Amino acid sequence: MSVQTDDEYSEFRRDLHRHPEPAWCEFYTTARIVEALRERDLDALHVGPDALAEEARRNVPDDDELETWADRAREAGADPEILDRLEGGYTGCVAVIERGEGPVVGLRVDIDGLPILESEEGDHAPVAGGFRSENEGYMHACGHDSHATIGLGVIDAVLDSDFSGTLKVFFQPGEEKIVGGKPMAESGLLDDVDYFYAVHIGLDHPSGEIVSGIDGFLAVNHFLAEFEGEPSHAGARPEQGRNTVQAMAAAIQNLYAIPRHADGATRVNAGLVGGGTATNIIPEESHIEGEVRGESTELADYMFDHAERVLHSAAEMHDCSVDVTTMGAAPSATSDAALSDVVGEVAREVEGVTSVVESADLGGSEDATFMMDRVQDRGGLACYVGVGTDHPGGHHTSTFDVVEGDIDLGIDVLSRAIRHVAETRP
Amino acid sequence: MSVQTDDEYSEFRRDLHRHPEPAWCEFYTTARIVEALRERDLDALHVGPDALAEEARRNVPDDDELETWADRAREAGADPEILDRLEGGYTGCVAVIERGEGPVVGLRVDIDGLPILESEEGDHAPVAGGFRSENEGYMHACGHDSHATIGLGVIDAVLDSDFSGTLKVFFQPGEEKIVGGKPMAESGLLDDVDYFYAVHIGLDHPSGEIVSGIDGFLAVNHFLAEFEGEPSHAGARPEQGRNTVQAMAAAIQNLYAIPRHADGATRVNAGLVGGGTATNIIPEESHIEGEVRGESTELADYMFDHAERVLHSAAEMHDCSVDVTTMGAAPSATSDAALSDVVGEVAREVEGVTSVVESADLGGSEDATFMMDRVQDRGGLACYVGVGTDHPGGHHTSTFDVVEGDIDLGIDVLSRAIRHVAETRP
Amino acid sequence: MSVQTDDEYSEFRRDLHRHPEPAWCEFYTTARIVEALRERDLDALHVGPDALAEEARRNVPDDDELETWADRAREAGADPEILDRLEGGYTGCVAVIERGEGPVVGLRVDIDGLPILESEEGDHAPVAGGFRSENEGYMHACGHDSHATIGLGVIDAVLDSDFSGTLKVFFQPGEEKIVGGKPMAESGLLDDVDYFYAVHIGLDHPSGEIVSGIDGFLAVNHFLAEFEGEPSHAGARPEQGRNTVQAMAAAIQNLYAIPRHADGATRVNAGLVGGGTATNIIPEESHIEGEVRGESTELADYMFDHAERVLHSAAEMHDCSVDVTTMGAAPSATSDAALSDVVGEVAREVEGVTSVVESADLGGSEDATFMMDRVQDRGGLACYVGVGTDHPGGHHTSTFDVVEGDIDLGIDVLSRAIRHVAETRP
Amino acid sequence: MSVQTDDEYSEFRRDLHRHPEPAWCEFYTTARIVEALRERDLDALHVGPDALAEEARRNVPDDDELETWADRAREAGADPEILDRLEGGYTGCVAVIERGEGPVVGLRVDIDGLPILESEEGDHAPVAGGFRSENEGYMHACGHDSHATIGLGVIDAVLDSDFSGTLKVFFQPGEEKIVGGKPMAESGLLDDVDYFYAVHIGLDHPSGEIVSGIDGFLAVNHFLAEFEGEPSHAGARPEQGRNTVQAMAAAIQNLYAIPRHADGATRVNAGLVGGGTATNIIPEESHIEGEVRGESTELADYMFDHAERVLHSAAEMHDCSVDVTTMGAAPSATSDAALSDVVGEVAREVEGVTSVVESADLGGSEDATFMMDRVQDRGGLACYVGVGTDHPGGHHTSTFDVVEGDIDLGIDVLSRAIRHVAETRP
Repeated sequence: MSVQTDDEYSEFRRDLHRHPEPAWCEFYTTARIVEALRERDLDALHVGPDALAEEARRNVPDDDELETWADRAREAGADPEILDRLEGGYTGCVAVIERGEGPVVGLRVDIDGLPILESEEGDHAPVAGGFRSENEGYMHACGHDSHATIGLGVIDAVLDSDFSGTLKVFFQPGEEKIVGGKPMAESGLLDDVDYFYAVHIGLDHPSGEIVSGIDGFLAVNHFLAEFEGEPSHAGARPEQGRNTVQAMAAAIQNLYAIPRHADGATRVNAGLVGGGTATNIIPEESHIEGEVRGESTELADYMFDHAERVLHSAAEMHDCSVDVTTMGAAPSATSDAALSDVVGEVAREVEGVTSVVESADLGGSEDATFMMDRVQDRGGLACYVGVGTDHPGGHHTSTFDVVEGDIDLGIDVLSRAIRHVAETRP
Repeated sequence: MSVQTDDEYSEFRRDLHRHPEPAWCEFYTTARIVEALRERDLDALHVGPDALAEEARRNVPDDDELETWADRAREAGADPEILDRLEGGYTGCVAVIERGEGPVVGLRVDIDGLPILESEEGDHAPVAGGFRSENEGYMHACGHDSHATIGLGVIDAVLDSDFSGTLKVFFQPGEEKIVGGKPMAESGLLDDVDYFYAVHIGLDHPSGEIVSGIDGFLAVNHFLAEFEGEPSHAGARPEQGRNTVQAMAAAIQNLYAIPRHADGATRVNAGLVGGGTATNIIPEESHIEGEVRGESTELADYMFDHAERVLHSAAEMHDCSVDVTTMGAAPSATSDAALSDVVGEVAREVEGVTSVVESADLGGSEDATFMMDRVQDRGGLACYVGVGTDHPGGHHTSTFDVVEGDIDLGIDVLSRAIRHVAETRP
Repeated sequence: MSVQTDDEYSEFRRDLHRHPEPAWCEFYTTARIVEALRERDLDALHVGPDALAEEARRNVPDDDELETWADRAREAGADPEILDRLEGGYTGCVAVIERGEGPVVGLRVDIDGLPILESEEGDHAPVAGGFRSENEGYMHACGHDSHATIGLGVIDAVLDSDFSGTLKVFFQPGEEKIVGGKPMAESGLLDDVDYFYAVHIGLDHPSGEIVSGIDGFLAVNHFLAEFEGEPSHAGARPEQGRNTVQAMAAAIQNLYAIPRHADGATRVNAGLVGGGTATNIIPEESHIEGEVRGESTELADYMFDHAERVLHSAAEMHDCSVDVTTMGAAPSATSDAALSDVVGEVAREVEGVTSVVESADLGGSEDATFMMDRVQDRGGLACYVGVGTDHPGGHHTSTFDVVEGDIDLGIDVLSRAIRHVAETRP
Repeated sequence: MSVQTDDEYSEFRRDLHRHPEPAWCEFYTTARIVEALRERDLDALHVGPDALAEEARRNVPDDDELETWADRAREAGADPEILDRLEGGYTGCVAVIERGEGPVVGLRVDIDGLPILESEEGDHAPVAGGFRSENEGYMHACGHDSHATIGLGVIDAVLDSDFSGTLKVFFQPGEEKIVGGKPMAESGLLDDVDYFYAVHIGLDHPSGEIVSGIDGFLAVNHFLAEFEGEPSHAGARPEQGRNTVQAMAAAIQNLYAIPRHADGATRVNAGLVGGGTATNIIPEESHIEGEVRGESTELADYMFDHAERVLHSAAEMHDCSVDVTTMGAAPSATSDAALSDVVGEVAREVEGVTSVVESADLGGSEDATFMMDRVQDRGGLACYVGVGTDHPGGHHTSTFDVVEGDIDLGIDVLSRAIRHVAETRP
């Protein structure tokens, strides 16, 4: 078999772009990746349940929702036999290549889309190119279609090289909701990995720029707080209600007022809130979907402990109850310089790379950190790499897009880095 | 023409019950009333726009919503010619009978339904009787189907009597959202009314009990506050957001804390609130649909003035803006003893009336008060009458229902009272 | 013995006016009253501890404070032997006259002053008359000096009459802090009282006007909430603090937002608050001195239950603790018409009385209600009487004063009423 | 003249320790410093008004307060002639030595005490040594007595050396309230300074350790917010009040909730708050004495802008007004490596120095930063040096103390550094 042409990658990426799917619903996406992988000379391919620790899965949509997306994938032409293996929302897969002696190197790419309505403007490349999202209201607005393609391309490049060792490529579902990283990290498939790379395109770095080691991951905890009280007529019997909107408001005010921490950056947001049924009824139910973050996992924990106290006290204050559920979470992580140095070294040799940045802060959250931490905890090294691209709209906006040539650049840099670490064992 | 049989009234009420419609969407209801009225010997019939002061209409749904309800009415068999006259949501009508010399007596009945899903239990009479709501999610859960029927019955009874004077029956739309009373009060049709009755069934009074004069109307102002700020990524750039959920929470906390007033009861409720789009985005938009009330119109105004200040300051506090719109309102009102005495007097003569209560507090709000105040301001008298009924579920619950015989009782009491005041001019 | 001249009453009142003393510190005042009573032909005189239920005393100042006021009284010429009997702040007394057969009639007058700096303006009568407060920062700004004088005058008038029965005059300490009424009510001395009057001068009624029965007492609960947390440097270690000022602020916001009650008026106030030590220290301690009230005792209890929940939850929310102590309290009460009618009847015969108002609402709180409730609970009747006076400044202001002739009017009306009820046993 | 013996420094420091004085009241302290300086061979000595930019002075106590402290200084034996020159609270001074060609080197030491009650325990060295504070309730709990002594000692050491250039030692008042740095920075005396050192003892570094360049100064703004509303009786007329405690509580809740900033650490504290007069009065006045900080001056400004908005909106929300006054402020600053390197170099040569730390974060605020920024803005270099000492109690606690030998160490290190920079002009 031979290295794929760039056109094939472009075609593959555009196919995924036309079918963006949210966490645990990446049926079409996974099926297409599996189909493509089956054409490669792999030594193992773990699909769905094999690649996910059951007990670590969170926030899985209900059966109706899963069924809807699976049907859509089927109608779009996904292989029914593969879809069957993903039943229950066990999306994603792990490809394994074993090529003789050498260390185990891992690469993680994420594959899910976002609930964003894609632009219909003519100057938006996917519109002009005829590959705008066909799942209306959803969009690959963060480049995960490119990431999956990089994963495929790196496999090809490594297969085509004199690589000696084992390569595992983790096609991870549910990054946007930070729900897929943990189950994949705890699947067991990561436990023999010596060197681990994760990759992201864009991040406001221009085409031609490689960030060899990204840090500054904010640990995060997404939570859902559901308040329950008692309704009552607001005019006739205000005192008989137990008012969840008052509880929710007290919680919001005090969540944002959790003390800052001297050890580093913290964050809190009550991003999606609501409650009540009608102006004249004391609101019986309300909810806060929010998040806390911290520059370190400890700082995020500090914030979450305080958030829980605030939520419970606010409920109690208005004689209501509250259930607080973690919807998704990710720890912080740090890129190892040894792996980052390798990326910098090989990147400088790649044609098209015009700039190498040694370090940059993500300033957001990512659940690749679960995998990075897992590898590092077991004595391995991990590194998160950025591949710049000139994106017209920002990440998570309706006009986000990538320069497709930068996908090839990413394949080149990462496959070289993988081969280099397998050889040099830094 | 002859007095209608009770069965006709029952049938009429059940027909309305099957087609509950919200404010400004009472297309089927109005059409059915108009059809029935056309069969009577009226002297005038003001339909839709003729019966409503254009400039006083508030909270009219958008065209799509109106169209949807009009279509539904059409499909349910409403007369298309009448529906045409209601275009734009000009629902309701006023029937006029002129019978020689005498004062002008007004009767107001309201006709709208509620956004409540009607019970499907077999012991719920409309289910057993086959007249459960056909507009799923909407229900006549406050007896306005009975009110409209009483209006019709009173017309019959007066037509069949030696009544001398003028009778105007106001079939008012949009009471539940307190939006229909004011436009009808200011339509001009009320301006020559000397004596005015309004009627309500149930109100937790048992079958056989008549409340001859209800007081204790809380003046009310329903408002919608829409906050607008600026979104931002909650992890990467929290400081660039202008957070409407913080503004909303500050507003809620302080709305409920508006100082109590020594002159009488006040109320406030943030009944339906929401904001934000995602856990990781600083919320750009949020809203409060709420209400304030007061034992007097002045007290409600006091509350609304404070509410507006709180809403604007809360927005300002978080560098957001807010639009506050009055969605509906009603003043307070008092029943005149002279008219109430008449009701008491005639009620005691009616077979089936087992108890007459002279006075009771509504403890809620009603926009019949606009009409009562208007009549009283111009020198007339007004009175709000309660007709008891054993209702299994409370008002505004999914199992509310009435004893249909109490509709006839209401017709009897009110038509007698109307004839009595025309004769005695109290 | 003979009826005292008015001049003696004026002199007595002015002496008390010069020596205003706060709750449990009425040493001079009690001593002067006891001295004056000793000159009368009493059958019993219960001083201090004898007239107070030990376990019901609250909010007694510490020994230093008591000692300071006792010393001041001594220096002002109070009888040291009497002062000894008041040790520990057992102020107030009860005078008893037994004159043959007849019911037991009680009269309550209160004797304490307020922490208000009296006006130094020349047109303030106590300045012009040379009897301005000598206890700088304290003032008889609510007429209790007049009340004590009325008590004395009523004794004289009854002694000088053909009264048959028993009269008990309760000179009650600590009304302003609502701490004296309960201990006196539970002293046992009230338990045989058949008819009970309490009296207040002023209340915005003019000279010559008598209010024969005052109602509208708001039940009240004064509380002190003391928050305790943990200090920390606000710049270096904000997260190590447990911030009582945040707890206090959350409590204040939510105290004022306790739901209004459909059964009647409620009140809440965080009247005196504070916390913290320095701008750069997370505040370790803070406090709220506040109150809740209700139109009925049940409504005040409703408010206090909610207030306690709010205070505890607010503390918990910020990982602090809070102690909530009741500092004083008073129930609601109602004047019996039978006793009020007597006052109205006799008042109309008194020269100088130009108007009798049957009923008025106090709109505030008073701990005479403990005594009224006690008498009524045991089958007796109770009534609170207002004696109008043209007061230049409002109650509790630095220019409050009374027309001294109205003291005589009060003596006349109340002594007549007492004799009348003893005779007619209404 | 000769170098002073250590004993003289110990005596001098203990004398200052016995007379701690707060901002703008350092009368005794300044007089004693001036007296000591007069014995030295100075070329200029700027006392009080000469060393302070009038318009930059803030938060000066009222005349009574100033007079009280001046009297105390007089009684303690301060030279009356010097005290006269400090009238109006113009405390502090600047000593100048000109020794031939060379750069101008500045040294800043601060001289004020804290409102802390000094420990009376026998194991507290100032108690044992008989130099506990004689200004009860005030204490040198942050080592400024040592700083002033270091200033004196450095002058002696430089005078006794072959130093060539100009040395200016700034004895700055009011550091604890961050009010003295700005007026001294803008006095003009700093404008020709080429190299500038500031020094602090302790800071949790042990005896023998020198921190050659301290960074991490949080810019700070101390503010006083005074709310004004309208009082009213909380029971009788709650609606007539304009409640400043509600305004204050809303402000506090939202101050702590000012959005965190992605660019760096921010702080906020409502450290000292209060309001109201009595439980039954709607509170007319309240206040917040608070502070905001930021890792950079921009971040502190960001916080202060938000704080002002919150304070004004909170007042407006409750129909109150608020005055916000800056009580003190300091920018951030950075130590120049060139100057820090010199300190490290010379320190390593000093006997007794066992450790040199190149850099440490203050983590708090300091108004020496005004001077550092001024010098750097004009092209000079600045550096903040830490001199470790084993202090039994923490800074700002009642048992803080220093090892007096470390004062000598500080003198040695700083005088060497000053001579070195004058020579090498780094």
